[in-house]
Amino acid sequence: MTAPLRIALAGLGTVGAGVVRLLAENHALVTARAGRPIEVVAVSARNRTKDRGVDLSAFAWEDDMTALATRDDVDVVVELVGGSDGPALTLARTALAGGKQLVTANKAMIAHHGMELAALAEQHGAALKYEAAVAGGIPVIKGLGEGAAANRIDRVFGILNGTCNYILSQMESTGADFGVVLKAAQDLGYAEADPAFDIEGVDAAHKLAILAALAFGTAVDFAALDISGITRIRAADIAQADALGHKIRLVGQAELQADGRLFQRVAPVLVAKSHPLASVDGPTNAVVAEGNHVGRLLFVGRGAGDGPTASAVVADLIDIARGNATPAFGVPVGMLSAAAPADAGHRKARAYMRFVVADRPGVLAEITAAMRDAGVSIESLIQQGRAEEGGPESESVLVAIVSHEGPESAVSAALQLLEGSPSISEPPLVMRLIG
Amino acid sequence: MTAPLRIALAGLGTVGAGVVRLLAENHALVTARAGRPIEVVAVSARNRTKDRGVDLSAFAWEDDMTALATRDDVDVVVELVGGSDGPALTLARTALAGGKQLVTANKAMIAHHGMELAALAEQHGAALKYEAAVAGGIPVIKGLGEGAAANRIDRVFGILNGTCNYILSQMESTGADFGVVLKAAQDLGYAEADPAFDIEGVDAAHKLAILAALAFGTAVDFAALDISGITRIRAADIAQADALGHKIRLVGQAELQADGRLFQRVAPVLVAKSHPLASVDGPTNAVVAEGNHVGRLLFVGRGAGDGPTASAVVADLIDIARGNATPAFGVPVGMLSAAAPADAGHRKARAYMRFVVADRPGVLAEITAAMRDAGVSIESLIQQGRAEEGGPESESVLVAIVSHEGPESAVSAALQLLEGSPSISEPPLVMRLIG
Repeated sequence: MTAPLRIALAGLGTVGAGVVRLLAENHALVTARAGRPIEVVAVSARNRTKDRGVDLSAFAWEDDMTALATRDDVDVVVELVGGSDGPALTLARTALAGGKQLVTANKAMIAHHGMELAALAEQHGAALKYEAAVAGGIPVIKGLGEGAAANRIDRVFGILNGTCNYILSQMESTGADFGVVLKAAQDLGYAEADPAFDIEGVDAAHKLAILAALAFGTAVDFAALDISGITRIRAADIAQADALGHKIRLVGQAELQADGRLFQRVAPVLVAKSHPLASVDGPTNAVVAEGNHVGRLLFVGRGAGDGPTASAVVADLIDIARGNATPAFGVPVGMLSAAAPADAGHRKARAYMRFVVADRPGVLAEITAAMRDAGVSIESLIQQGRAEEGGPESESVLVAIVSHEGPESAVSAALQLLEGSPSISEPPLVMRLIG
Repeated sequence: MTAPLRIALAGLGTVGAGVVRLLAENHALVTARAGRPIEVVAVSARNRTKDRGVDLSAFAWEDDMTALATRDDVDVVVELVGGSDGPALTLARTALAGGKQLVTANKAMIAHHGMELAALAEQHGAALKYEAAVAGGIPVIKGLGEGAAANRIDRVFGILNGTCNYILSQMESTGADFGVVLKAAQDLGYAEADPAFDIEGVDAAHKLAILAALAFGTAVDFAALDISGITRIRAADIAQADALGHKIRLVGQAELQADGRLFQRVAPVLVAKSHPLASVDGPTNAVVAEGNHVGRLLFVGRGAGDGPTASAVVADLIDIARGNATPAFGVPVGMLSAAAPADAGHRKARAYMRFVVADRPGVLAEITAAMRDAGVSIESLIQQGRAEEGGPESESVLVAIVSHEGPESAVSAALQLLEGSPSISEPPLVMRLIG
């Protein structure tokens, strides 16, 4: 077992360079723990001449990344290119079909093609490992797939996107509105130049779809996910939530319901301040899993960045070097069951509904009548004073309603009754309360 | 790989019965995840006729527990008897020496004999697994030994004893004193009839010694541990900590210092309310590890009880069934380094010092002079009114001092200056502040 584990790295961005750096810096201990050296043999990236702050001179270079997967001197291909399809997928398929192990940080690819890749891995006796794809450095794929493997897991939920959590935390602490904080986060490198995947909840949804499959033993079903992002949250919503004893967090929630249906949603929610997720601030991620014997497990750590992500990638490599092999989704792909999507309308929750309304008589009566007619019981209602003065909405005010616990379908029905009302100037924002 | 993994269970107390129950209840999913059935073949316990609420009729019975380790039809021995030596140790040695895998929840045995047993396991090609020995259902052995394996870990600390955490939480919420809460906890079954191992910090120390070895790659060194329990904490200390923005928690802290020395301590500490450990209430456990690439990882879950502990035991069994093998302490035993114990006197911290003093003039001057002479800088000092009226201490008052950050040796020196003072009626209680 002293033959080195020979790896090829595709992608030399922040994470790729982080893996090279970690393997150099922790070489002795990684070798000791892995039982043999883990050696980078070959690399590939778009630009050969770019200075990445790490020494690549000892590694072979491939201009065509797919060529990494067919080299005879490579045991494991590490895919850090990103993108659900395109070159990353071609590389992954080629590597696994050739019986090479694949380690990836690519959540989009696993969410969209994880089943196919896992089947390919099984067929060719190769490992498919993706710890870095979910929640950065937190060993949550291992935690669910191995640590909690004795349990029927009924629910898994958590904060899965560091960018959104950073933005929401900043909005909380500065009182600034979404756009201002996003811009500052971009300037600091905490948000991408094109932040859509993060702020619209797609990145968190990729991760949640993967967690759900692993936790419940169900087929990955990204398409069925209900996704809302954080772009419509205003400083006023944060202030309102605070007054109610809550914080706003973008939370991914998955549940295998008692009826066998699969509920999966990524959305901003109001989290009670006493709930463990409420104290998760900044770019941190947190995952909660509830097992039928272990009870509630919580994993917290840094959800992104070169160090944490490289830590997860190299943990996968050490597993492979040790000969540890767990099926990609905990059980053979053929055993993953296809669960029908849940009908969220039956689910019960308290709801926060925020309306931007014209400042004129009768608006509250119209809204509260709709609630009554749809069977939504109001727990509290707050109408705030005029919005930012001088702004385009200076004639509008915010109305925030919190309902008693009731079916989501009733809230939808109430909003439908209000649809088209000339008093309501933009679509209402609805967030559920948890905790 | 469809041959069943055949196990023998030694010990049928809460945890043993919990394992039988879990394997029955989750049989299909455990089989699917393990890749083959996990079957109990034989059991042993002190009393054959006792009703444990689980059906044992299908299992062979051994009066002599050691006989489990020599049965030809057993692959894995699961030791749930407890005790660092005696029958548990004999069983473990016999099983491993015979090449059988050993799974144990026995923290005392691993803290005292883990090195010997790990060496025996290596020698005979058997696995030694003990996830259930530390932090109940939280997969922290896996989290550190595999999930964070790419990192040099510099510090590991946490709340490792659920009984103590329950007692401290109850003291917080009820304002009652230690003895009252302990009695109530015993009545509810949250504390043992003989609670010494828990409340004196020994149980937490066993777990910390194991975590330190795994995290740092150092030899298990339980003997070097500095251990204080929670028996001397009064309601007044909790109230004082609260006024200072802190909670009191029994925390195990281990650090491989920059000088290569190993610091290991279990003691009650004042944790800032904003610190993640402060919100860990009741019988919950929490472990923080700090890695040089991953940053800070936090694992939280239930630290005891049949369900969580059985979950950890069966996770180990699933690992064995899958063929996953990680060295017991992350690296071969021969590579574990012997680190000299740290000299705590050099460590810097803020300290809380509580004195019970006679209510007469000059006491404060005596205490503060000692602090000055020893170079302890006082940040705050509070003298509380008379203690419980009518009680034996009605002539005594409490003085609580918080120092600025400084070396522990200075605090020790100040206390030494005060030793034997007729004004001070019991040994001062010192707790460090963290967070």
